[in-house]
Amino acid sequence: MALIGIGLIGSSLALAARRHGLASEIVAVARQQATLDEARSLNLADTYTSEAAEAVRGADLVILCTPVGAFEAVANAIAPHLEPGAILTDVGSVKGHVHRVVGPLVPEGVHFIPGHPMAGTEHSGPSAGFAELFENRWCILTPTDGQDRKAVDRLIGFWKAMGSKVDLMGHAHHDLVVAITSHVPHLVAYNIVGTADDLATVSKSEVIKFSAGGFRDFTRIAASDPVMWRDVFLTNRDAVLEMLGRFLEDLAMLQRHVRNGDGPALEALFTRTRAIRRSIIDAGQETAAPDFGRPHGGEGPAEPPSR
Amino acid sequence: MALIGIGLIGSSLALAARRHGLASEIVAVARQQATLDEARSLNLADTYTSEAAEAVRGADLVILCTPVGAFEAVANAIAPHLEPGAILTDVGSVKGHVHRVVGPLVPEGVHFIPGHPMAGTEHSGPSAGFAELFENRWCILTPTDGQDRKAVDRLIGFWKAMGSKVDLMGHAHHDLVVAITSHVPHLVAYNIVGTADDLATVSKSEVIKFSAGGFRDFTRIAASDPVMWRDVFLTNRDAVLEMLGRFLEDLAMLQRHVRNGDGPALEALFTRTRAIRRSIIDAGQETAAPDFGRPHGGEGPAEPPSR
Repeated sequence: MALIGIGLIGSSLALAARRHGLASEIVAVARQQATLDEARSLNLADTYTSEAAEAVRGADLVILCTPVGAFEAVANAIAPHLEPGAILTDVGSVKGHVHRVVGPLVPEGVHFIPGHPMAGTEHSGPSAGFAELFENRWCILTPTDGQDRKAVDRLIGFWKAMGSKVDLMGHAHHDLVVAITSHVPHLVAYNIVGTADDLATVSKSEVIKFSAGGFRDFTRIAASDPVMWRDVFLTNRDAVLEMLGRFLEDLAMLQRHVRNGDGPALEALFTRTRAIRRSIIDAGQETAAPDFGRPHGGEGPAEPPSR
Repeated sequence: MALIGIGLIGSSLALAARRHGLASEIVAVARQQATLDEARSLNLADTYTSEAAEAVRGADLVILCTPVGAFEAVANAIAPHLEPGAILTDVGSVKGHVHRVVGPLVPEGVHFIPGHPMAGTEHSGPSAGFAELFENRWCILTPTDGQDRKAVDRLIGFWKAMGSKVDLMGHAHHDLVVAITSHVPHLVAYNIVGTADDLATVSKSEVIKFSAGGFRDFTRIAASDPVMWRDVFLTNRDAVLEMLGRFLEDLAMLQRHVRNGDGPALEALFTRTRAIRRSIIDAGQETAAPDFGRPHGGEGPAEPPSR
């Protein structure tokens, strides 16, 4: 197994694949020596290299784990060296773009099956990974029509062995689904944190002190990897703008309800949204513990984390 | 101590005051018999009544813990029965409105000192409370100019004894601070959850299945008490519309960056917002654990909660 990129997702794949005995040899690729050194110190793989072309030689499974913006260059570098019969997949948050830029570069005989595990944390880098990251989370695969069913089944088996649930869909539909479940939420979170940071009437220290009123929930996803998310918005523009447009239409209506003091309309929306969280908890995609299970009581100033 | 309203905050006050020995007798008030019965079964107070007027007789400390929209009616009912020298305070999320509607009803000799603990969870009702809720959280008091300093100090001491940090500020500034740190975040969360619920192109079951990509973070605060939040938006309209206006201006700019594919502008914002979470963690107002410390691995479909 060759992991091109060894950040949060790449390192979690390495740890999960090893725990579940899914790869006889793991090769980790990173451009920067410091990242490779960190991966090596964490014993994430068997071999470490900055040369993606070298890493994919002899690999049955090649997984692109860099930010999506790097995929085209990586695909150009590795394409001539991919083994016939190998599976080439990825973990990018956008799938139409991946089909578009990587697809044409894939040699015949290589099974190209783009994928996207809906899992992560706000941390990044090789030390952010953990073997349980994919457990009980969905992984969406977007194979092209006519893709070899056996290869798709092998990849499904790989994800299921790590504890994932797997769904198949077309890449265009995937990109709409994640625009509303992931990309627009991130955009809105980044935006409100930026707005709060910019205010003159409320000081930054007040925003920080009083963040427990709701704001701090947004800061988690607004702390996600900046380069990864830049690439998401550069490559899923149409679906993001479409879903952002819906969001803005609804927000204009809600703003009107606030301006008009329309209590019944506000209460009706707030009652409806409460039920959706219940469904997510019932589906096993969220903890039922109040406040995400955050510690309450004695949670003083934190130790600076190691990263 | 008389608690008018015995939901999440009222019940937490009862438990914290008892744990820290802050009240010799606790009287719990609720309009509905079912709520009183629930409070009694949880042994939250010493006495239970649906008559607020009766509860405040002989009380040194009266705390309004109902949704803000009920304050005026409650104040009318209790005003003639408040003891001279008693402190009347509240835990409402809006303070200008409280000064405006309750202030004029307070008899001379009663110390009216509105307050707002920045603490809570998405759960509500008497069984949602816990004694640690206020630990390490800020409580803002907004006394009027010329309020008796000794009374203010007694109320500060009450909150500090429960583990809170206390800040004093004017009610107008409070209402702006919470508009950006709490009210607009809630409005945006309610809105995006509503948008996702309304889509035709992405099914509700897909939104639920794939919510771990970011959406589920928003559902927590969009699961907050509908009546309480209706009243917040009805009573803090001007500050909410002002802060929502700023948010929308910034979002228009961000939308433009997405449309234009402006990578450097996106990356610059996403890098800046990441630092703010770090500050909130360093200030002890957020957990440093990845993903809020949510359980990873083995978090299957949840048991239905008791409420």
